[in-house]
Parts: sequence; C-alpha cells; structure tokens
Amino acid sequence: MSNAYREMWRDLGLDLERHDAFLAALPGAFSEVFLQQDNRPAGMAYFDNLLGEAHGRRVEEILAHKRAGRLVAGTFCVFVPEELILAVDGVSVGLCAGTQFTVPAGEQILPRNLCPLIKSLVGFKLERICPYFQVVDFLVGETTCDGKKKTWEILNDYVPTYVMELPQRKEAADLALWEGEIYRFKEEIERRSGQKIDSEKLNAAIKKANARRAALQRLYQARRADPVPISGKDALLISQLAFFDDPDRFTAQVNALCEELEDRIARGEGVTSKGAPRLLVTGTPMPLPYWKLHHLVEKSGAVIIGEETCTGSRYFAGMVPEDGETLSQQVKNLARRLLDINCACFTPNTSRMEDILRLAREGKADGVIYYSLQFCQTYALEARQVEKALREAGLPVLCLESDFSEKDAAQLQTRIEAFLEMITS
Amino acid sequence: MSNAYREMWRDLGLDLERHDAFLAALPGAFSEVFLQQDNRPAGMAYFDNLLGEAHGRRVEEILAHKRAGRLVAGTFCVFVPEELILAVDGVSVGLCAGTQFTVPAGEQILPRNLCPLIKSLVGFKLERICPYFQVVDFLVGETTCDGKKKTWEILNDYVPTYVMELPQRKEAADLALWEGEIYRFKEEIERRSGQKIDSEKLNAAIKKANARRAALQRLYQARRADPVPISGKDALLISQLAFFDDPDRFTAQVNALCEELEDRIARGEGVTSKGAPRLLVTGTPMPLPYWKLHHLVEKSGAVIIGEETCTGSRYFAGMVPEDGETLSQQVKNLARRLLDINCACFTPNTSRMEDILRLAREGKADGVIYYSLQFCQTYALEARQVEKALREAGLPVLCLESDFSEKDAAQLQTRIEAFLEMITS
Repeated sequence: MSNAYREMWRDLGLDLERHDAFLAALPGAFSEVFLQQDNRPAGMAYFDNLLGEAHGRRVEEILAHKRAGRLVAGTFCVFVPEELILAVDGVSVGLCAGTQFTVPAGEQILPRNLCPLIKSLVGFKLERICPYFQVVDFLVGETTCDGKKKTWEILNDYVPTYVMELPQRKEAADLALWEGEIYRFKEEIERRSGQKIDSEKLNAAIKKANARRAALQRLYQARRADPVPISGKDALLISQLAFFDDPDRFTAQVNALCEELEDRIARGEGVTSKGAPRLLVTGTPMPLPYWKLHHLVEKSGAVIIGEETCTGSRYFAGMVPEDGETLSQQVKNLARRLLDINCACFTPNTSRMEDILRLAREGKADGVIYYSLQFCQTYALEARQVEKALREAGLPVLCLESDFSEKDAAQLQTRIEAFLEMITS
Repeated sequence: MSNAYREMWRDLGLDLERHDAFLAALPGAFSEVFLQQDNRPAGMAYFDNLLGEAHGRRVEEILAHKRAGRLVAGTFCVFVPEELILAVDGVSVGLCAGTQFTVPAGEQILPRNLCPLIKSLVGFKLERICPYFQVVDFLVGETTCDGKKKTWEILNDYVPTYVMELPQRKEAADLALWEGEIYRFKEEIERRSGQKIDSEKLNAAIKKANARRAALQRLYQARRADPVPISGKDALLISQLAFFDDPDRFTAQVNALCEELEDRIARGEGVTSKGAPRLLVTGTPMPLPYWKLHHLVEKSGAVIIGEETCTGSRYFAGMVPEDGETLSQQVKNLARRLLDINCACFTPNTSRMEDILRLAREGKADGVIYYSLQFCQTYALEARQVEKALREAGLPVLCLESDFSEKDAAQLQTRIEAFLEMITS
C-alpha cells in the first residue's frame, strides 16, 4: 500500500517516516491475530481489505468527498449523533486511538495518569500519523469523562474541536438539556456544511444509521450460536471498522457476512468446537488497532461472544424510531436512544448491570471479563457494582486492568487461563 | 481530650483503637507545623482550640443539635448550597479526608488510581474514625468529577448519599438545570427536616453564609500586606475549619482575628520580614489535616498569600445578592454564585486563569505553585493552560503533583527551594 499513497499522505501533512514505522508493524500483528485463525468466514475478506486500506483507499475516498464539498467530522464517542452528520451527506469518521505506539507522544502534553485511549488519540495528532486527523474539518468531542472533557480543550489548539455536553444523569431535566445539545449540534453542522437539515433529510439519515445498527445486531445475534460461527476478534474488528467505513456499503457487507454465518449456524459449523468456553467482555472501548484481550482469550481456547463496550453493543444497541415526522420528534427520538446507552459516566448507572446480565444470558456466557483501561476512573469504580451483580447471578467474573502495551500480555494470559480453568472445571 | 469523649465516640460507633492511633499523631504534627511559628497572631488561639476539639466538643455540640431535632448534613464540595441546610437551622459539616492514614482502607474498595482525597474520605468511613461521618443524617454528593461521582454510588451502601448534578458547562441551559437541582435539593432538605423553607428563612441563611464569606474575604485581604500579618498555613487552617464550625461563631472569630491583623498591618508588623518571597497556591483541595505543602513552602522562607482552591478562595469568593424577595429569585441567586466558581470540572474554564492572575496580582505574588493531587485528572489536565497563562503574564510557576503521604516531602522541598532561588535571584 505504502507507495501508491505516499503523495496523498505527504499532502495531508503526515510525518512519512513515523507513519511508515507505525504501518510497518501492522501486517505482522494482523496476520498473527487474524489470518492464522481456523475456518474464518469468507465474508471477512471485505473487512480485512478495509483494514488494509484504512490509511489508503478509504482516506482517498474521504478526500474525494471533501473535495466535492462534503463535510468531514471526526468523532470519538458513541454519544455523538452521527445522524446529523449523515443528514447533510457528511462523512463521520472515528479517530485512531488504540496503540501504545503513540502513547509516549501523547504524554508529552498530557498527564501520564490518564487513560491510554486519550493519550494514544492525542499522540496520533502530535505524531501526524493518522490521516483521518488530518482530513477532518473538525472534531466532535463530548463531556463523557473528565479525561476527554479536559483533553478537548487542549486538542482544540491542534484541530477545531466542538464539544457536546452530555448530562450526568438520565432525568427529565437531563433529557431536556441533551435535546438542546442535539439542536445546538444540528446548528453547528448546518453552519459548517452550509446546508439546512430538514425532517426528510434527517429521517433518511436515521434510516441509514438504523440499518447499520440492525446489521451489527444481526451479527451479534449470530454469535449466540454454539458453536459460534465467528470469532470474537473478527466481530470486534467489524465493530471497530464501523466507525470508519461508508455506512451503506458497510451495512451491506455485514449483512452478507451474516448470511454466511446463519448458513453456518444451520449446518452447526463454527470456529470453535461446540461447548468451547464462552465469555462476555464488558468495560472500556477497544479502538483500532487494539486486539490484545480478544487475542489472549481466544488463543486460550475460549471464545468471546459479545462486548458490552462502546466498540461493541453500546454503539449499536437500540433503534431510533423512524416515524418521527417533525424535526422536534426526531431530535427527541435521537436524544432518547442515546440516553438509553448505559455508559459508566452516568450516575446512577444500574441499567448497565441489567445489560450485562442480559447479554451474558443471551450469549450463553460461561463467564464475564470486566476489562478496564488503566486510569479510567468511571469504569474502574463501576466494576465493584458489576462484580456484585454478576456474583449474585452466579456468573464468574474476572476483572482485568490493562493498557495498550504488550508488556502485561504474559501476566494477563496466566490470569485468563486460570479463570478458564476455574469456569470449565 | 481522649478520655472525656470516649463514651461519645463509643456511642457513635467509632473504632476506638484505630481512632486513638489516628489522634495520637496529630498533636505532634500540629505542634511542628503550627505552634513553632514565630509571632503568631493571638487570635489563632480560637482556631487551635477548635482543631484540638474537632473530634471532641464540636462533635458534642452537633450531637446536641441532632438530639434537638436539627438536621445534620455531611458535605464535601463548595458547590453544595449550604444555605438550604442553614435555612432549616440544620448543621452542615465537611468530612474528614486529608490524611494518608485512611488511604489504605479506602483502597480496599476503591481503585488505587484514584485521588487520595476520595480514598481518604472513604477510608475514614470504613475505619470508623471520623465522628462526623457517624453523626450525619446523610451526605450530599455532587457530580463534579468522575472519581467523586462514582464513589457516591459506593458510599451510599454505607451512609445515605444524596447526589446533586452539577452541569459541565456554564450556558443558559446549564444554569437552568442547576437551578432545578437546587430546587430538588430544597425539597430533599424539607423532606428530611420536616420544615418548609420560605423566602424569609432562606434570606436569613444567605446572610449568614455571606457573613462568613465576607470574614474570609477580609482575611484574604489582610494577606495582601507586606510583610504579611499571618502565615499561609494559619490562613489555610482557618479555611479548613470553616467547614466544621458553627457559622456565626466562626465568622465572629475570623473578624476578631482580622482586626488584630489589620492592626499589625497598620504597624507594619508581620510573620515574615518585609520582602519575603510571596507565593500563590492554585489547584486541588487541602482538607483537614493536610498541611504538607504550606509547611514545606513556609519552612523554606517564603510565605503563601492565597489559595485558589476549594479550601481557599473558591469556597468564599462572591456573594449571594441579599435582595432576592421570592424563593425563585433567591434560588437563581444561589445558582448563579455557585456557577461563578471556576472549578476545573467545567469546560471551558478559562475564567479560572483570570482568577489566578487576579489573585496573584492582588496578593503581589512572586510566583505560583500549581498543586495537583495525584490522579486528579481535571486539575492535572488544566495545568497546561494555567501554566501558559502565567508564563504569558511573566509569573514563574512550579507544578507539583503529590498525595497525602510524607514520602515525597524531601523531594518537594528540593523543588520548592530551587523554585524560590530562581524567583528571588
């Protein structure tokens, strides 16, 4: 890929040398984690290729859209109502943030005691090795956690950053404030795109985003089968790529893959033998190119059947009602679906316990891994309640705290293997 | 003190052995930090005694109030509108939270990567060595930072904890939400106390709290003189005790002290020689019994002339207008004054830079110490902007991160001395 896109990367202001160094490590890691799996679904080829072209063809496409006058927004959270970006035919892209490679750069301007997700994100900008960071017209931040909330203030010195205020509870006053924030975001999108958003455009965008949600829900549904027709890491990769790809094309490809998976289920075919230990993962996001936990778990003979995370079910759960006829109804519908997401930033957040228990039950999980990125205070603090709820439900739980480095891989592996031994004995 | 109150402590459910161990270390520390100062104002005797009786007579007083049917609320943040507690003749007390002694206990149920303030607070409850924790009818928490927000959920298992939602920005919608929260809090206080709050009662409470603010502002005003008539640590102790004492008595004592200080100023008398290096401290709260930073700085020959912290100017800056005639006007006035506080939990929080620059100018500071408790993400992240603003204003700044232990004292001392050498050379 490298040579075909060098000129584009140079034009985008990437640091070609650092970018080369970053890309150099990926094929090996990808091959080890993904390509060496047995009996992968054929439909994964599209997603493998999408990842391979993440810094290439997909960037080229977005650049072409941008030249055609379409708005390009960078997002970093499932609470950003992408529908408003889609309503002006804009492009919404996630930002690179899942690697230790950029953490040291992030630490040059951020405290070390901050979650690796944020440090990696900022490092990508400082190192100039994320083409999406270079191509976006602006970033959309939110006030989900202290770390991100205050980092947007700093990032705004590097790229225009618009911040949505997510409330901290889910009462009527919070819904009202959040609806106001969606209106304010609508105005920002209108101002930046030069287009008015009417109820027709917004309805089309709602349908587009719903279709993607439906496809991802269908994929999750397929993972409930035993044997499971697709590995956890392949499902994770798909979720991660959802933030980058063209929504319609992505939806079609996920649905095509799901047909293959449903055929497998009908035939009783899977990527593991029937009865392999099944785990649900719950916790903090796993952005590209982070696959460590899934790889360790699945190397150990278990399979991950779901992720109650922002790069998992929190992203695509629920649907926005499509019968909103006025903008006001539609905004209310968007606001409500988003406030139904059970992020640990809310207080109280007891519905998350229900989500986890339901997902574990639906996925026939034998156990749960509570995964928290180091220094993520909301998820670390909520672990206590989740553990309690799981214990009461008789579900074994393993709490892990980690970061994006590989340094703790052996230690994690040992703990995972001990946990698997415990739940299968 | 110990013997006179043992029965009361036992009745309160304190762990007498641990409580003895905790109290045993205090007189020595207090003597070293406070009593060995030269030329202390005579008016400090009241506050020394208040501290000495913090677990004794003051608790006895509060217990008597409680037996007389008065509400006792535990608070932990300057955003809690104490006026509503005072309006029903209730008692508002701060909670113990400033010692390494209780941090290990806090870490039994909280993540280690959490600020020592919260871990110490929770540790006091788990160890049963804070009489205030035992005597309160309920706690009032708030959603200022992730750490506290999620800790209230856990603390609620140990003591009833009511949570106020502080918004994260300061726009019209936020003020509206916050006003709603103050009304909700008013209802909670009415429910718990069995008293209605009318505008007359609230006005009297506003005046009471304003009088305390005025006295503390007067104290801060006195600290602007050169030579400074009172040490920074004595001023800090007074601020810390403001959260515990009876408001009227406290106000009278602070005013009496201020008269003494103003006499000193008129005579050109101070606790340091004229021209001693003057520092402003800005950053995270310093609850009782935390005096480390002030002690290190003032041992090194400099004097602290102000604290832009929640145990400093953020607590008492601004006044609630006293001309509100209706409850609605009064609540609006309370809400506005509180939202004028520039806590790092807000985004943006640029007014804090203005506060710091103004306080440094008013106090004729030669330099600023930015002090952040470990793992406090909001203040750690905001340090960058504050540093920038101070550098642009030509004010030297030293950024320190610390905790409640004494382990880093020598290292901090070296850095403080180097900083003082730099600004005085």
